[in-house]
Amino acid sequence: MIRVAINGYGTIGKRVADAVAAQPDMKVVGVSKTKPSHEAFVAKSRGYPLYIADLSKKAAFEKAGLPVAGSVDDMLKAADIVVDATPGGVGEKNRPLYEKAGVKAIWQGGEEHEVAGFSFNSDCNYREAIGKQFARVVSCNTTGLCRIINAMDKAYGVEKVRAVMVRRGGDPADIKRGPIDAIVLNPVHIPSHHGPDVQSVLPHINIVTLAMIVPVTMMHMHVVQMDLKTAASREDVLGIMEKHPRMGLVRKAAGITSTAELKEYAMDMGRPRSDLWENGIFEESVSCIGKELYLFQAIHQEADVVVENIDCIRAMTGIEKDPAKSIAMTNKAMKFVAIK
Amino acid sequence: MIRVAINGYGTIGKRVADAVAAQPDMKVVGVSKTKPSHEAFVAKSRGYPLYIADLSKKAAFEKAGLPVAGSVDDMLKAADIVVDATPGGVGEKNRPLYEKAGVKAIWQGGEEHEVAGFSFNSDCNYREAIGKQFARVVSCNTTGLCRIINAMDKAYGVEKVRAVMVRRGGDPADIKRGPIDAIVLNPVHIPSHHGPDVQSVLPHINIVTLAMIVPVTMMHMHVVQMDLKTAASREDVLGIMEKHPRMGLVRKAAGITSTAELKEYAMDMGRPRSDLWENGIFEESVSCIGKELYLFQAIHQEADVVVENIDCIRAMTGIEKDPAKSIAMTNKAMKFVAIK
Amino acid sequence: MIRVAINGYGTIGKRVADAVAAQPDMKVVGVSKTKPSHEAFVAKSRGYPLYIADLSKKAAFEKAGLPVAGSVDDMLKAADIVVDATPGGVGEKNRPLYEKAGVKAIWQGGEEHEVAGFSFNSDCNYREAIGKQFARVVSCNTTGLCRIINAMDKAYGVEKVRAVMVRRGGDPADIKRGPIDAIVLNPVHIPSHHGPDVQSVLPHINIVTLAMIVPVTMMHMHVVQMDLKTAASREDVLGIMEKHPRMGLVRKAAGITSTAELKEYAMDMGRPRSDLWENGIFEESVSCIGKELYLFQAIHQEADVVVENIDCIRAMTGIEKDPAKSIAMTNKAMKFVAIK
Amino acid sequence: MIRVAINGYGTIGKRVADAVAAQPDMKVVGVSKTKPSHEAFVAKSRGYPLYIADLSKKAAFEKAGLPVAGSVDDMLKAADIVVDATPGGVGEKNRPLYEKAGVKAIWQGGEEHEVAGFSFNSDCNYREAIGKQFARVVSCNTTGLCRIINAMDKAYGVEKVRAVMVRRGGDPADIKRGPIDAIVLNPVHIPSHHGPDVQSVLPHINIVTLAMIVPVTMMHMHVVQMDLKTAASREDVLGIMEKHPRMGLVRKAAGITSTAELKEYAMDMGRPRSDLWENGIFEESVSCIGKELYLFQAIHQEADVVVENIDCIRAMTGIEKDPAKSIAMTNKAMKFVAIK
Repeated sequence: MIRVAINGYGTIGKRVADAVAAQPDMKVVGVSKTKPSHEAFVAKSRGYPLYIADLSKKAAFEKAGLPVAGSVDDMLKAADIVVDATPGGVGEKNRPLYEKAGVKAIWQGGEEHEVAGFSFNSDCNYREAIGKQFARVVSCNTTGLCRIINAMDKAYGVEKVRAVMVRRGGDPADIKRGPIDAIVLNPVHIPSHHGPDVQSVLPHINIVTLAMIVPVTMMHMHVVQMDLKTAASREDVLGIMEKHPRMGLVRKAAGITSTAELKEYAMDMGRPRSDLWENGIFEESVSCIGKELYLFQAIHQEADVVVENIDCIRAMTGIEKDPAKSIAMTNKAMKFVAIK
Repeated sequence: MIRVAINGYGTIGKRVADAVAAQPDMKVVGVSKTKPSHEAFVAKSRGYPLYIADLSKKAAFEKAGLPVAGSVDDMLKAADIVVDATPGGVGEKNRPLYEKAGVKAIWQGGEEHEVAGFSFNSDCNYREAIGKQFARVVSCNTTGLCRIINAMDKAYGVEKVRAVMVRRGGDPADIKRGPIDAIVLNPVHIPSHHGPDVQSVLPHINIVTLAMIVPVTMMHMHVVQMDLKTAASREDVLGIMEKHPRMGLVRKAAGITSTAELKEYAMDMGRPRSDLWENGIFEESVSCIGKELYLFQAIHQEADVVVENIDCIRAMTGIEKDPAKSIAMTNKAMKFVAIK
Repeated sequence: MIRVAINGYGTIGKRVADAVAAQPDMKVVGVSKTKPSHEAFVAKSRGYPLYIADLSKKAAFEKAGLPVAGSVDDMLKAADIVVDATPGGVGEKNRPLYEKAGVKAIWQGGEEHEVAGFSFNSDCNYREAIGKQFARVVSCNTTGLCRIINAMDKAYGVEKVRAVMVRRGGDPADIKRGPIDAIVLNPVHIPSHHGPDVQSVLPHINIVTLAMIVPVTMMHMHVVQMDLKTAASREDVLGIMEKHPRMGLVRKAAGITSTAELKEYAMDMGRPRSDLWENGIFEESVSCIGKELYLFQAIHQEADVVVENIDCIRAMTGIEKDPAKSIAMTNKAMKFVAIK
Repeated sequence: MIRVAINGYGTIGKRVADAVAAQPDMKVVGVSKTKPSHEAFVAKSRGYPLYIADLSKKAAFEKAGLPVAGSVDDMLKAADIVVDATPGGVGEKNRPLYEKAGVKAIWQGGEEHEVAGFSFNSDCNYREAIGKQFARVVSCNTTGLCRIINAMDKAYGVEKVRAVMVRRGGDPADIKRGPIDAIVLNPVHIPSHHGPDVQSVLPHINIVTLAMIVPVTMMHMHVVQMDLKTAASREDVLGIMEKHPRMGLVRKAAGITSTAELKEYAMDMGRPRSDLWENGIFEESVSCIGKELYLFQAIHQEADVVVENIDCIRAMTGIEKDPAKSIAMTNKAMKFVAIK
């Protein structure tokens, strides 16, 4: 059993913890919080030992009815590997802690590639991660792009990718962030950072990305256009998507035309937290025009990297060397039934 | 086993179906849809027989991979009681169908009181419902108001209620409805219909309500102010709320200040569909000033009436004559652990 | 003086009326409303004679203090040309009225090309409109696309256009329309209707468009990518934009990154109704990569077609045969000072 | 001519500057910015001398084409009075500057009462401001409350006020602030700070206020309920509102039911920046039930304090000692035609 600590029990951290707990070959040895909040009560209800960064706050936690197991340093001692899910930019500062404790560490895409020197995606470079001490799971958007680009590249060769990311403003419970009534270019300049980030995983891909932020809380929407090296038929492309363990085809018959309806469907199907771990590709949008491929895909910002973190744990610890087997095991443990 | 049909498998209907299926003394004999949609696939995955209003659409359903069990008339024949969860105003037109089929029927709050001649709330008038053929479960807002008003009336006597309802614009997956960037008075005149609707259950209560709509999808927020007949202490009021089976105290320690964080908490606690069946009363807001009581309560528009429908089924069929026992049974079957 | 009637005094109609009134060579002979509303009071305050479709409502208007000048038929008798700004789909039904009255008529982009058999854009085909009885000014999105595509086509030749339209959900005062918290693919299939609509004006252009709707009320945002026939330098492209009478460069120095800040700027500059009649092209986004051009442009859905309607009136009536002179006259009368 | 400086040329500052410039007895001697932005270009276009807090940024301004007149200290030397419209909390830190420069100063409601020791409202305490060195114009919400409460108190006596403020999340161009899809209690506890803030102007008023924030950018909505000492008739109350120079009755005939439609009306009427300087009271909502008064009023957060600042300048400088005359002069200069 791999002993996993989660440093930062927030939007991503709480999902990674539950995903770890669901796996047969790993367990949660602790999660950390910086202050008492509703999520600390959730950790308690799940039975995850609660560690805190600043022990001087121990009394505040305990007054709220939240037992404290120790400091983050204590948590690291109990772990083989730590998943750092602290807010973007904070993770980098934690690296010396992890080095000192001698634990393996995984950061999220809010950190730069350089924090780990290696950027991970289950489909693209699982085998390269085997045995590494440090890795970074790329962001939700980059993960979604890597999956579809890599799949098409293997099948047809990809000459060029142009992608537009229409991003959510904040997560559902993030009440501080806007915008309320604006489309924000983020950034105004072209390309956005997503293209180079894809190249941290797939260095040979020629890609230009543009990004904007809109007032929604649920899911990003990607417009993906690729110039393929070989012409593809729509049927073959759909076939590849159907077989892919981390792609879900949003069928025309279901009448789903939006992120909101897609989230409702995931909720109705009983997914924990209505999570969409896979790329939500709109079947009807998949279009092959000459050597060009066009499609819309929804990317659930809170969820798609969760399963990647699990695979990354297996690769880094070397417990499973075959990416297909890890992906299958992760999916099975989470009762991942495709939205198909 | 009471045989329950759900006519209208949408936002409320799908929740009532799952709640019925969770009870030990009733079962779902069928649900109805007017067209294939993602919810029809959900019904199929749950194993609920799918009936359709217009049999000429049978081929369209079956082409989409959705077997059709028969017409709505067929469904009614298989049922002891039907829960009508069709869109507001449609339910009224179904009454002749139910009369003809000789089934008991429950309508939702989108219909007028007159559709059934009796308006139901588990806390307030369960015993009056025993043996009735027709009943109407009052709307989400009215249900939330009835619970808190009745509890305070029994304890202290209520001289006057003033309530402001800040309502959600549309349900999460309802992509057609706005507003996008406006506060809409709905209605402009005072009082709104909610006051008279409360009086359809609690005729002796003196109440003035005002309502507006804002661009959110999750939960209504009520400002409730009551002039009590006897002064109350804050501690006693909180005590009543803690003991009430359909009230949840949103604790200050959890740091929740909004509908969005409250929904996240319900989601994290594993509630199906993140549903909040109880009034979400913000502990810190509960204030006693002289003989006045003030508080904020969040009302989950998709959920709070679901448990009331279950109790109403038990009352109308006479299978359980004690409201407290029905409420406890309903809550237990849904693994209702208070947000406390 | 050309006598202009505006049939439908709403979002577009009220702007066209004010634009007509500002021109030296035309005047407003009447505007029409179907019911008393705040806009009818605005028409009254502007001194525009108010006509109504259904004379049986005359009493209701007059009771509200709104004198009625006559029926829509009466209005048409007083006009040389009518601008039909009724809701999409209604305009088509008015065609027999205009034929019978023998007036020239302009429809908006909410109608199909076939309603007039000729689709207009000031830049692209002004001369073809000279003397026509019927024309259709293309929609706000198509107008914005035609301007930029035509300008680049004349300078460099356009091989292919790929454009993504991120559209507003409803106009600012349209409180019924959503979505509230969703990205809606509209349509899910590719291409959207915008590509063919551009071809109704520029038939030789090879274009693929995709469109989605987001919860904002102010402006659409276009991602425009073109494969040019000849490589262009960024400086030259910016130079063309600077000189174009209907393009505005949103300068990097102004720090504007969103539709909301751009609208605030138009407001602060004293533009009537904060209107942006030009394409709002984000200077910093304009990128030339090989033979490819990328840019973001904001399109104010309520405004950009207003100036096109004025030019179309001049072309159809033949009062001015030179497009450049009409465009300059329109702009000057509106005190159009570029956002530059 | 009173020489007025505006420290902080943002949402409020730019409106105060234009309002000052429109008055016959005062003029703008300078405005300040901390960084080049679109508003600095607006100041330049208006001909307002531009001062900057940090002279080391002078080169950055001038590179952007924005001439710098000097430092904030220089600006203060040229002024008789400064209107501090810096962000909430910053204004307090500027007090020593104003003391040292020996200028009179007005702060906004984002600062505490203590910053000036005197809180101002034109209707309530104009005469007390005469000759003062420092004053604070209360916030938009408090201004709106003071107007209506004072008017009713003078006419009928006010026993008790209960008010609910449904507040906008951010100003239209404030793209950072949320919420996107939440109702946020701000604060959760009761009362909010607005009640005590009203008492800083009207100390004898018994008032309880509650506040929440919703995802809109335009206007707050107040639910105001008052227990009057003497019963009032609806007609008399409406009559008082009609005559009040800073109240606007939103007439039922205009069909306006929301903040968005009201803003559209102000825009259509040609108000600069669509500003609503008056309380927008919904005629149809005004209800007298026994000795109780209920109403909805819209408060334009960017605008209603602007006219109060102008009056406050006249009072403090002593140039006009009669509040009614100042209010009339302010309104007339701004071509204030009531929304009536």
